[in-house]
Amino acid sequence: MNAIDRALEANQTFVLDYNPAAISPRPQQRLAVLTCMDTRLSRRALGLAAGDAHLIRNAGGIVTDDAIRSLLISHYLLGTNEFMVVNHTDCGLQQANEGELQATIMRQAGLSCPFPLHAFRDIESNARKQIQKLTTLSWIKKENISIRGFIFDVQTGLLPEVHSC
Amino acid sequence: MNAIDRALEANQTFVLDYNPAAISPRPQQRLAVLTCMDTRLSRRALGLAAGDAHLIRNAGGIVTDDAIRSLLISHYLLGTNEFMVVNHTDCGLQQANEGELQATIMRQAGLSCPFPLHAFRDIESNARKQIQKLTTLSWIKKENISIRGFIFDVQTGLLPEVHSC
Repeated sequence: MNAIDRALEANQTFVLDYNPAAISPRPQQRLAVLTCMDTRLSRRALGLAAGDAHLIRNAGGIVTDDAIRSLLISHYLLGTNEFMVVNHTDCGLQQANEGELQATIMRQAGLSCPFPLHAFRDIESNARKQIQKLTTLSWIKKENISIRGFIFDVQTGLLPEVHSC
Repeated sequence: MNAIDRALEANQTFVLDYNPAAISPRPQQRLAVLTCMDTRLSRRALGLAAGDAHLIRNAGGIVTDDAIRSLLISHYLLGTNEFMVVNHTDCGLQQANEGELQATIMRQAGLSCPFPLHAFRDIESNARKQIQKLTTLSWIKKENISIRGFIFDVQTGLLPEVHSC
């Protein structure tokens, strides 16, 4: 059985004690977390329960236009007022530089990738860059939203804070 | 205490039994799930354990360029070969049309949003559109990747499948 069919089978058990009233679509902690799609990251590492936060995830936990779109919707439509950006050590995007990563995909796909992959070398400066990008956006009113950045250390599980300057 | 400080406090407990060897960065089920940032969606609904899959999440579970970037990295760099797109009923992006959503943000932010918010009305046609977009991408070799779409019903917890045509 493939992974998707296994997920559908598991969903049959999940629905048995599913309660639609249990979780509000408005994040209870008024928190939005932008982080990486990586297997080692989870809301458990942040002590978050279902319903506490919006979870926005992409390769790297990068502040892309799409992540900004999600954060704007999270804040202006669903009332979050804290943004937490979590990058992590040993990220796939750190394994090679942009050109090398592009070449790896091109070799296998037979086509070049039409947009940047956001490869990076130094995790601290990458995380700082994300925070800086977010805090300088004119759509985000700093007096209404707290923005903070962290690096999840996959060796220790700890979350040291990163400061933008 | 604010939400981020609570998360950092919870992380102090999380690290006590954290085992860095427990989870591989390569998804064990070779699965990537693209879904919404919504509070009601979780890997539990799909029976997925930590380490099973890449989780890519944005407002709506939309196949944006950034979601495609993440999926390409997931497949070509980290070996996933099944893509599961999960949209859901009662999505925030369904509450109004694109112009109305843009106006809601503009009113509060004092600035217009520089990119589409991907508002939609009909969940089935929206989900079909996402699958169609993904299956027609030339970077994705259909013989190597299974792509399927679902709608999470927030009332029942069920996951009916959506077919692209």
